Amino acid sequence: METNSQRPIIAAMIGDPAGVGPEVCVKAIATGEPQRLCRPVLIGDADSLNRAIETSGLNLTLQVVRSLDQARFDDRTAVVLDPGNLKPDEYTTGKPSAAGGRAVVRWIRLADELANAHAIDGWIMAPVDSTSLKLAGEVANIDDLQPPQTWMFRISGPLRVVPITEHIRIREVPQTVTRQAVFNLIRRVDETLRRWGIAAPRIGVSGLNPHAMFEEDVNEIAPAVREASERGINCKGPISPDSIFRHGLDGHFDAIVSMYHDQGQIALKSAAFEGACTIYLGLHFVRLSVPHGTAMDIAGKGQAQHLSMLAALKTAALLAAGKGFLKEL
Amino acid sequence: METNSQRPIIAAMIGDPAGVGPEVCVKAIATGEPQRLCRPVLIGDADSLNRAIETSGLNLTLQVVRSLDQARFDDRTAVVLDPGNLKPDEYTTGKPSAAGGRAVVRWIRLADELANAHAIDGWIMAPVDSTSLKLAGEVANIDDLQPPQTWMFRISGPLRVVPITEHIRIREVPQTVTRQAVFNLIRRVDETLRRWGIAAPRIGVSGLNPHAMFEEDVNEIAPAVREASERGINCKGPISPDSIFRHGLDGHFDAIVSMYHDQGQIALKSAAFEGACTIYLGLHFVRLSVPHGTAMDIAGKGQAQHLSMLAALKTAALLAAGKGFLKEL
Repeated sequence: METNSQRPIIAAMIGDPAGVGPEVCVKAIATGEPQRLCRPVLIGDADSLNRAIETSGLNLTLQVVRSLDQARFDDRTAVVLDPGNLKPDEYTTGKPSAAGGRAVVRWIRLADELANAHAIDGWIMAPVDSTSLKLAGEVANIDDLQPPQTWMFRISGPLRVVPITEHIRIREVPQTVTRQAVFNLIRRVDETLRRWGIAAPRIGVSGLNPHAMFEEDVNEIAPAVREASERGINCKGPISPDSIFRHGLDGHFDAIVSMYHDQGQIALKSAAFEGACTIYLGLHFVRLSVPHGTAMDIAGKGQAQHLSMLAALKTAALLAAGKGFLKEL
Repeated sequence: METNSQRPIIAAMIGDPAGVGPEVCVKAIATGEPQRLCRPVLIGDADSLNRAIETSGLNLTLQVVRSLDQARFDDRTAVVLDPGNLKPDEYTTGKPSAAGGRAVVRWIRLADELANAHAIDGWIMAPVDSTSLKLAGEVANIDDLQPPQTWMFRISGPLRVVPITEHIRIREVPQTVTRQAVFNLIRRVDETLRRWGIAAPRIGVSGLNPHAMFEEDVNEIAPAVREASERGINCKGPISPDSIFRHGLDGHFDAIVSMYHDQGQIALKSAAFEGACTIYLGLHFVRLSVPHGTAMDIAGKGQAQHLSMLAALKTAALLAAGKGFLKEL
């Protein structure tokens, strides 16, 4: 049995206080499961969390702290670090608000500061609301919340995919598929998987074009894979885009490098395992987000499903400790 | 109970005689299930079929005919129309051959001739071999076997997808996504689904770009969907490519029009239901193919799985009779 202080500290930023974020956070902690792998901490306003505990009828006590060294970690306590920047009368459950948007941006900064200072080992972003963020005038769109120079590493069951680019036009995709970009991402994935506890990562690399048999596949992706192989990385590709994700689902790869957003996303959403999550690859700490939104229509009703948050907490705890991916929920 | 002559005649061209095609054909017919929906006929060489019956230990008699009016349809008989163009010593099971390639092309022409003359109501292509076809010098590649002016309508469980284009480069895709091309395909899908027995088809239309929020999505796809809607077609789109196939899997659409090959293929292969098949949309008869290959390595060993051929036979029978899609295997 590990002592408390050996387990990583994993924070969950509760997301928009008016959405389902506070609820999925307290429900996940109330299962008692994250506590076996980490010391979980919530970052957000205590008020929305107390209401979520009440609405969901959870046997859980909230401990509000201003500093992490005050935290008491046990199965029936949820620790919340509340910087006191949001008042209960500034927002209404189920409705986006400027105050909610401002609060979320402040909490995100706090979580990153704590992680950069090694006060926490990683953190999870519960759903934020694009309308709240726009009302607050803090960011132009949700994509801006992605840390610079990171890639989105998405997990759904046995399938793990990281694309070279995110929300760019299909017509702009081919020019981003360069030997250097593919090689860089393969190397980054290999390094990161090793740090996360995968001793000998198996990396699949998708082609760009149908059956991976056109120019970019041959002239850019294939040489990148060769170069990575020559440096001792276990990677295969380019593999036909319509087969590689099936191989991933069948457990043949620890991660798949894909050539554009929808390639992997279509596979991830078609397979649709419970408890999917996304990790920002390229940071020294684990930072995750859950794949669902604020679901304002069911917020405050005790109906929200917490399996994604639970999986994210457990995944962050395992990876931060270098123990590999979550095997099952 | 229908009489025999009311049931459509569905042919299965046995594919490369050296591959698993003959075996999956006789195994599917030996289940007795296709006969409840159609009068099945095989097109190919009797020799490979007799060997497949023997290897697989099937209780099935082969009736070799030179003309369909000689056919005797019952549960323990497989009728084969054998034009006598292939001799047993011209090929070896498990090995591609020029003779096999030539024979297949002849059988394909025969099947199309019979369908065009309304002597059969549809036909299925068992796996052909690209090496055999090249050795025969008949076609440059397998894509050439697709009838001109047709689209590949793919089925895997509840998911049915037809893309505007097939094996073209990603860099060439955006210019093919025009208002006219999208509208034409939507209209063709609607007409065809009605003929197949779907009274009020629900058609989903994918976007091209991430979240369907860029130029082609707005300027080409959206107007095509509007035009189709104005003409009374029940269609929705453009829908985010990473969501629409999930909706299809959840049964929300009778068919999805996709913008390029891999969009739908990734979803179809990730979902991977048993018994997938492909229909060439745009012909007056149903013409299908099975999604697997010749599997030369297991040919002649009695190991090949016949569920795709069985699903194809039943699907062809139902669609030719205007009875809608196969509900389950």
